[in-house]
Amino acid sequence: MGRWEPDASGRLRQAAMELYVERGFEQTTVAEIAQRAGLTARTFFRYFADKREVLFAGSELLQEEMVTALEGAPVSASPMDAVGLALDAAAAMLGGRREYSRRRQSVIAANADLRERELIKMASLSAALADGLRRRGVADPDASLAAEAGIAVFRVAFERWVYARRSSDLAQVMRESLDQLTTLTAQRNRRGTR
Amino acid sequence: MGRWEPDASGRLRQAAMELYVERGFEQTTVAEIAQRAGLTARTFFRYFADKREVLFAGSELLQEEMVTALEGAPVSASPMDAVGLALDAAAAMLGGRREYSRRRQSVIAANADLRERELIKMASLSAALADGLRRRGVADPDASLAAEAGIAVFRVAFERWVYARRSSDLAQVMRESLDQLTTLTAQRNRRGTR
Repeated sequence: MGRWEPDASGRLRQAAMELYVERGFEQTTVAEIAQRAGLTARTFFRYFADKREVLFAGSELLQEEMVTALEGAPVSASPMDAVGLALDAAAAMLGGRREYSRRRQSVIAANADLRERELIKMASLSAALADGLRRRGVADPDASLAAEAGIAVFRVAFERWVYARRSSDLAQVMRESLDQLTTLTAQRNRRGTR
Repeated sequence: MGRWEPDASGRLRQAAMELYVERGFEQTTVAEIAQRAGLTARTFFRYFADKREVLFAGSELLQEEMVTALEGAPVSASPMDAVGLALDAAAAMLGGRREYSRRRQSVIAANADLRERELIKMASLSAALADGLRRRGVADPDASLAAEAGIAVFRVAFERWVYARRSSDLAQVMRESLDQLTTLTAQRNRRGTR
């Protein structure tokens, strides 16, 4: 058993992000992350499976929060209303850490393996939302469509928020993007161009 | 230089798919694929980088066809109209091969590496459609949102079509799914539940 270390997990995450930005993800070792955090590699592995998982440690919690919000929507809520509540929950969890999110985003963008891992995370989120909608009695293909559309909004809104020049409210950006998707899909000439 | 082999690429693809379904993707070797096709491994590598790429050989062409259709949309077409034409082009390319698509889909579903590769393909398609929309003068976030929504429709419609009990027209399923997304996004209580 190691000594008790106050917020070891947070310190490791902070140290890892600093090193990934300074040296690049590939060039950073677990030993260096632990050293920067004033901890041992053994402590690192108590919290994270490897140096990649430091960047994805919150994924399961994010998915839980989103699914819980979706399932807690009023019975009268439409599928996209329920998905909107899931997006609100995501914004509540992620919205306070724009600087962290920006650095994380830049580290991920620079590495093909990390980009793949992020795609898998989003696909898993989409599948979890679709399952949640099915449990609410939404039939397919509506459940899959609403979930995929929600993740499309999530992706675009998150990117907008992370890279915006001025800081803004993530929940607000999510809502605007969802409204914008509604406007875009309504702007169709269902016969004219096809 | 090898002998000229009529439709070597098609024979290799056919042989590969048979073996992937019979034995599983991991258990199949390039030598076995070539043998089944009556060709040599050397001929295989003239067409495909590895046994995974047999399943993704059409990806670039699909992307080109979709982007060309999107760019060829009338000036008056809305972003989602242009995306609809890209979906029509995808249906025209893929719609005649339901049995092949079904087998491909089942092989991919059974293997984590292939699922990742498929996610990357879809992300790349989405980025290419967004770029095409930007070249049409569509600003962000509309370009990204319309492209992501189009890919969401593609995914859901393709899956529906592949696994439908009766054979149906892929273009028709794509159009219905796009209409259904429009209906879903319109069914929102913009204030009530949030």
